[in-house]
Amino acid sequence: MSHDTITFYPYQVQPREVDFTKRATLFSLGDSILHTAGEDADRTGFGVRNLQQHNTTWVLSRMAIEIERYPDEYEHYKIGTWISGIGRMMTTRNFIVRDNDGNRIAAASTNWAIIDMQSRRPLDLRANVSSYSETPIHECPIDAPRRIAGFIGEVVDDRCVRYSEIDFNQHTNTMKYIQWMMDTLPLTRLQDTSIRRMDINFIHETRYGEHVRIYHEATSAEERFEIRRASDELSVCRASFRWNEL
Amino acid sequence: MSHDTITFYPYQVQPREVDFTKRATLFSLGDSILHTAGEDADRTGFGVRNLQQHNTTWVLSRMAIEIERYPDEYEHYKIGTWISGIGRMMTTRNFIVRDNDGNRIAAASTNWAIIDMQSRRPLDLRANVSSYSETPIHECPIDAPRRIAGFIGEVVDDRCVRYSEIDFNQHTNTMKYIQWMMDTLPLTRLQDTSIRRMDINFIHETRYGEHVRIYHEATSAEERFEIRRASDELSVCRASFRWNEL
Repeated sequence: MSHDTITFYPYQVQPREVDFTKRATLFSLGDSILHTAGEDADRTGFGVRNLQQHNTTWVLSRMAIEIERYPDEYEHYKIGTWISGIGRMMTTRNFIVRDNDGNRIAAASTNWAIIDMQSRRPLDLRANVSSYSETPIHECPIDAPRRIAGFIGEVVDDRCVRYSEIDFNQHTNTMKYIQWMMDTLPLTRLQDTSIRRMDINFIHETRYGEHVRIYHEATSAEERFEIRRASDELSVCRASFRWNEL
Repeated sequence: MSHDTITFYPYQVQPREVDFTKRATLFSLGDSILHTAGEDADRTGFGVRNLQQHNTTWVLSRMAIEIERYPDEYEHYKIGTWISGIGRMMTTRNFIVRDNDGNRIAAASTNWAIIDMQSRRPLDLRANVSSYSETPIHECPIDAPRRIAGFIGEVVDDRCVRYSEIDFNQHTNTMKYIQWMMDTLPLTRLQDTSIRRMDINFIHETRYGEHVRIYHEATSAEERFEIRRASDELSVCRASFRWNEL
């Protein structure tokens, strides 16, 4: 992969973004990755602001992130991003995260749809982003985001969507789902080891004031979480976490 | 007040720091103010890292913040800070927040003690920060942080201190208390008006896993909040919010 054809965006780990280990949290890295997607889409003319002029917007469907090293507080890093394919319903955007020495510390892959803002239904991408710059020479740096099957599981927490958790449309910020899941994990586990890979599927949006429950199931290979709307058990999102060896 | 003797620190409102109105939240501005305090104390040789070498640390006791205009997403601003007095138990650090045109958009005043990290008891400041640079020519830009009296109130929420809310010492991040209080307010209120002044008293620390309840009382002039530890009703912190007129 030649780096010089990928645009990199600079970041620095802020005090607000670290946990008790003084390293960036998984969800703050996820935030920076999504922010990079927004910046790069703006640069190529297909940002949210452009799309909204046509009453359409991007929706994140799946994300996979692999982290080799969580950056420290105040550490500088950069995120490079590129599109690796456009299907009828879904496009793939990849990311590579490098530290200041150029070492890869994380990578991610995301799947996006375009929806009509009124009907909330997906649109044909090829009709909407005809000149979208596809750079298929760069392969996806990690395995594609996986589909996570439903499971029964046990309730480990419940939440009500609050003021500090919503975006401009009063929907829950997607990275808050990861935070909610991680908030249920034993602190000792987060101290002694770290998440090596996370896959997450976003299935339905939730809104301010809605009540959700968090379900959990562990297998030998991974831990799975599902967030369901409390009123009707609608599945909102599912994720799987794989850990570095203890 | 002559500006050139105050050190200013630059900031930019990040996407993580805005609410559904696309403006910086009160608690993210509070975070930047506390970050400025840390940077300036480091610069003058009395930062947390220096103190911890002597088994002591700063503890925030009271804070008052007045906000004339909440900065927009991506807006640049700067925070100036100075010490206005050192007593036996408490020192006052003031702040002024200016936008890129030099207009004052907010100001704050904070009271700090130094404690022994083992006993958690306060130490005589004058014996510990002898050469601390006091600049009394700059007056406090707003009324000093008020003491907030206890009240009975009604329970409006309860919380358990979680992974995403703790600092390096596994204590609750102080700005999370403000977030918890604001999370109980009606969204319409936060849309139509904004908090003009907040006073907050930090009384006791809370730790990971502790359960707290949030109490509320409204008077004609202000709204008061108190956070109490659920196990023994110990008062953790109290705050009063005053609003811009609707």
